[in-house]
This record gives sequence, C-alpha cells and structure tokens, in this order.
Amino acid sequence: MASNGAVSDSKGHKFNPHFTQTVINATGPKAKPRVRQLTASLIQHLHDFARENELTVGEWMTGLELLNEAGRMSDDRRNEGQLVCDVLGLESLVDEITYKLATSAEDEPTATAILGPFWRQDAPQRAMGDTIVTGFEDKGDKTWMHGTVTDFRTGKPVEGAVLDVWHTAPNGLYEQQDEGQPDMNLRGRFTTGKDGKYDFYCLRPVPYPIPFDGPAGKILQALDRHPYRPAHIHFILTAPGYKPIVTQIFDRNSKYIEDDAVFAVKDSLLVDFKPFQGNSKADFELPYDFKLATYEDAKKHSVAGTTEESASI
Amino acid sequence: MASNGAVSDSKGHKFNPHFTQTVINATGPKAKPRVRQLTASLIQHLHDFARENELTVGEWMTGLELLNEAGRMSDDRRNEGQLVCDVLGLESLVDEITYKLATSAEDEPTATAILGPFWRQDAPQRAMGDTIVTGFEDKGDKTWMHGTVTDFRTGKPVEGAVLDVWHTAPNGLYEQQDEGQPDMNLRGRFTTGKDGKYDFYCLRPVPYPIPFDGPAGKILQALDRHPYRPAHIHFILTAPGYKPIVTQIFDRNSKYIEDDAVFAVKDSLLVDFKPFQGNSKADFELPYDFKLATYEDAKKHSVAGTTEESASI
Repeated sequence: MASNGAVSDSKGHKFNPHFTQTVINATGPKAKPRVRQLTASLIQHLHDFARENELTVGEWMTGLELLNEAGRMSDDRRNEGQLVCDVLGLESLVDEITYKLATSAEDEPTATAILGPFWRQDAPQRAMGDTIVTGFEDKGDKTWMHGTVTDFRTGKPVEGAVLDVWHTAPNGLYEQQDEGQPDMNLRGRFTTGKDGKYDFYCLRPVPYPIPFDGPAGKILQALDRHPYRPAHIHFILTAPGYKPIVTQIFDRNSKYIEDDAVFAVKDSLLVDFKPFQGNSKADFELPYDFKLATYEDAKKHSVAGTTEESASI
Repeated sequence: MASNGAVSDSKGHKFNPHFTQTVINATGPKAKPRVRQLTASLIQHLHDFARENELTVGEWMTGLELLNEAGRMSDDRRNEGQLVCDVLGLESLVDEITYKLATSAEDEPTATAILGPFWRQDAPQRAMGDTIVTGFEDKGDKTWMHGTVTDFRTGKPVEGAVLDVWHTAPNGLYEQQDEGQPDMNLRGRFTTGKDGKYDFYCLRPVPYPIPFDGPAGKILQALDRHPYRPAHIHFILTAPGYKPIVTQIFDRNSKYIEDDAVFAVKDSLLVDFKPFQGNSKADFELPYDFKLATYEDAKKHSVAGTTEESASI
C-alpha cells in the first residue's frame, strides 16, 4: 500500500524507509525519460533533506509560503522566484553546468553568467554608436563601450551579431523598478556589420541591492547576508549559426566583487573602465571583445549531456 | 573570490568543487542556528541535484516557472504550491516526521495525515447531532458519524474538544471550488461536552481528482500519473491542554486506496461505513473514536527535535 505507516521497522529506521521509493515508483510508463530522471532525483533529495533535518510541518509551510509569495510577486517585469534561486546560488550553478566548456580548448568563447530577473524582451534597436542613456544623462560616469564580436575558433569577425545590453541607473534601479526613468532606459540592441565591431554609450554601472521587499530579501535577512551586487553590465549575444551567450561583465574595482549576493562573478568577466579623452560624450572607455562559438564548436567543447533545450513537460 | 570559475581542478572535478561551500559560507553570524542548518542543507541538496543530473538553464527555468505559476494561483481559497508538494509526497513526509510517536507506547493517539489545500478557517459552529450537509442533500449516501474523543493515555473522555470536519460533495468538489454549493457546505465545527461524545450527519465521501488545471496537474501529467484521491474525510481536532491533530480517515473500500495521488493513506486511518437503520436521516453509520495526547504525553513520545513551531525567519 502507498502508505507512510508510522511503524519503525526492525532495522530501526526512524521513518518509513520505503516511502520515498513508493513516491518515485508512482511515475507511469509514459513519462519522458529525462522528466522521470529529474523528478525521481528531486524527490529523493527533497525527502532526504526533510529526513536529515527532521523538517516539521511548520517549517515546511514557512518555506512554502515564501515560494507562493515569490510566485505572486512574479510577472513579466519581475521574477522573484528566480531571485530566490539566485541568492541560493542555483542560477549560477546551472549556468556553469549548461555552458561549461572543455578546458582543453586553446581559446575559449566568452564565459557566461546568469540572466538575472531584469532582462526585458524587445529592448529598442539602436544604431551603432548611439547611446542607451535616455534618462539620468547628467548623473553617472558616461562611458564609451566598444569592441568586436569574433568567432572564438577562427578569430574572424561575426556579422549580424545582436548585442542586447542592459544595466542599472546610477540610483541602483533598473528602469522597470523606477517610475522616474523613461521606459527602456539603459537598454538597447545593436547589430554588427561585416567588421563585427560594435560601440555605444552607456553609464558606468554601480553596485546595487537586489530587491529586498520580497521572499529573496527575507531569506537574505534570515541568513544575515547583504543584498548587494557588484557593478556589472548585462548582455545577451546572438548571431546566425552561433550559440547564444547570456553574460555579465563586472567592474574589477567595484565593491562587492568578492561577495556578490547572487554568486555570478567569474574572473574572466572582470573588466577595467579606463579614463577617456577621445570625445566629450564620455569620461571612460570600456573596450571589450566577445567571442562566440558556432553550434558545432560549442557542441564539441560542451559537457556531455547538457543541452539548452528545456525539459518541456 | 566568490566565483564559480570554469576551470576543472587537478582532481578532475567537472564543476567548481568549492562553489556550494562558498554559497553556504555566505551566511552571516547572526542567522538563527536552525535557519542556518536548514538553509545549508537545502543548498547542498539543490546543488547536488543540479550537478548529479547536469541540470540545464532551460530545465531549471521550466521548474521555476511551474513554481511561480503555483504561487500566482495560490490565495486563501487555494494553495497550489502545497498541492505541488503533495504530489511529490513532501507534505506526507513532513507530517510523518512531525507527528511520529515512539512505537513503544502501549496505545497511540490517532495518527495524523496531511492538511491538504482545502481547509478553511471559521467553518460554522454547529450543535451536536446537526448535519454539515447544506447542499446536495438528495445526492450521495447520508451518513451518521459518531464516536468519542478520549485521552490516549487515560482513556477518559475529553471535554471541550473541537472537531473541525470537511469533505467533498458527491461531485468530487469542495464547496470553494464549486459555485453550485452553498458557502461552507460540508464543513462544520462541533464541541464535545463532559462525555467527550460527538455525532453529526454528513455524506459518504467519494474519490476525486485533485485540481488538474495548474502546475500540480502538469507535473502529474508529465509523470504519467492519475490525480485521484481515495474517499476521505478531513479533521482537525483541538482541545484545551491537548496537542492538536490534523488527520483524515479513509473509506477502506474506496478506489485509489492503494495509490493515493498525494500518498496520505495510513493503515490505522482506514474506516468502514456500515449500513444503518437507526433513523431515516442516514443510510450508513460511521463509528470512529479519536485519541488525543496531552502536550506532555506527546512530548514524551515524539521524535526528538521535532516541534510544531515554525522556523520563523
């Protein structure tokens, strides 16, 4: 019987030793193999977590209410559930797993970093050399960012690469968090030509606290942790025939670079803002080249078994 | 550095072997010991789950969106997050852990079972011998349920015990799921007198599918599992000086008694509906006695370390 009978067995198990297998075995024959595998493993880990810690109903309900609250706060402008995962390091870990490349490669494509909860679809398409600053023009350090998108194996420029960029305003808020900013402020999409080059004007980003008014904030508070992220700029790079890259670059001199609240910093993504005197539109310049891998190359260097496909259930 | 650098170490770890400890170590000195313990263990299990299965970003986001959707569907009439836990056996497991009693006891208090997502606060207080049926009077098998609430150790009747009861209508729906039912149909609270006795009229419950239109339903479908629960009646029993009990009793002859979709059936909670000819108000009778433990007795027999207090964070 699918019972969780309360009787200790002769081996002295404190809790019904067959319960977890009963739950796992309930999966039917038509479940997809990957769904079956993931669910069985998740059930095993959740149950082990509960038994090892003798998790009570009250404690479980406290956690459950945090998750329900996170879901209620989540919409197309904010993803609080994602933020909860982020403060537990889960997004950074699945990012590492998904995009891991063999270290034997002579050269490597640009490393990846977490998407975070603030990306928005349909950022404005802008002309090369344009600015993404449409609010807070007189605040923050104006920066000219420029570089080339290349094929990581051949070193050749990539034509038609779309660089989707977003970062916070000098007050530490993304535009969708802040009624004082124009819609889509500090966001833009740029498409490379034959030379693979890109350039645009932005502001030098600042450290900021992740939103602290929801479950993720409650968790950080309960863990006696700060909510700050080091200064960074987000990117998604796509190009025909190339594997998309989701990444962030981090100001090497920023506070919190050693203890990012969401554990996303990688050494290879640290960058230097340099004083700039080339024109009056910027006080700093930020040269940075992106390296894309074709699907074929990415496949060769990827960890076996990981794909970008979602386990659609 | 709190980095998840992508370099394999000399021991051939596929993924950064220090990452999980980095996340766990971020917890500050002022975190409560129990919160620290539970979070560290949860992080370890979640990360192990991700690594062991090489969980991709896409798969993680699929799961995350299910959780966010569950939160958005949850309010004071429906708890979809709880239902997701239920189909994974988690509520039944924490119920077992929390209320486990030493098997050395000569007699045992009534076993517990999961609360489920359909309990409502403030069910009507009714007079002893009254009915909880205010809709569907002419459908379903009318049942007279009766018994005594006793102290599990002394066997003496318990005065002032409040029995909060709820079950589904013959169409398989709880009243809050069904606009065709009067508010609070098939719910009631009854308070025992000096003799500890209770009795009321209800309907014989039927098996029903848990709500299938949300994430819990999607999970069941992906796992090729049915959504049915065997026929059961829910109870919460409280009495001054006694430990509250949340439980369900199950019709021994019901379909799905062997494979409850939420794994809540226990042998000691199986009951028999018997044909009844005592009066015209019921066709079946259901005798059932509840045994409560005082807080002191419950403590003596409880698993060490489990309490009903929630880990308030």
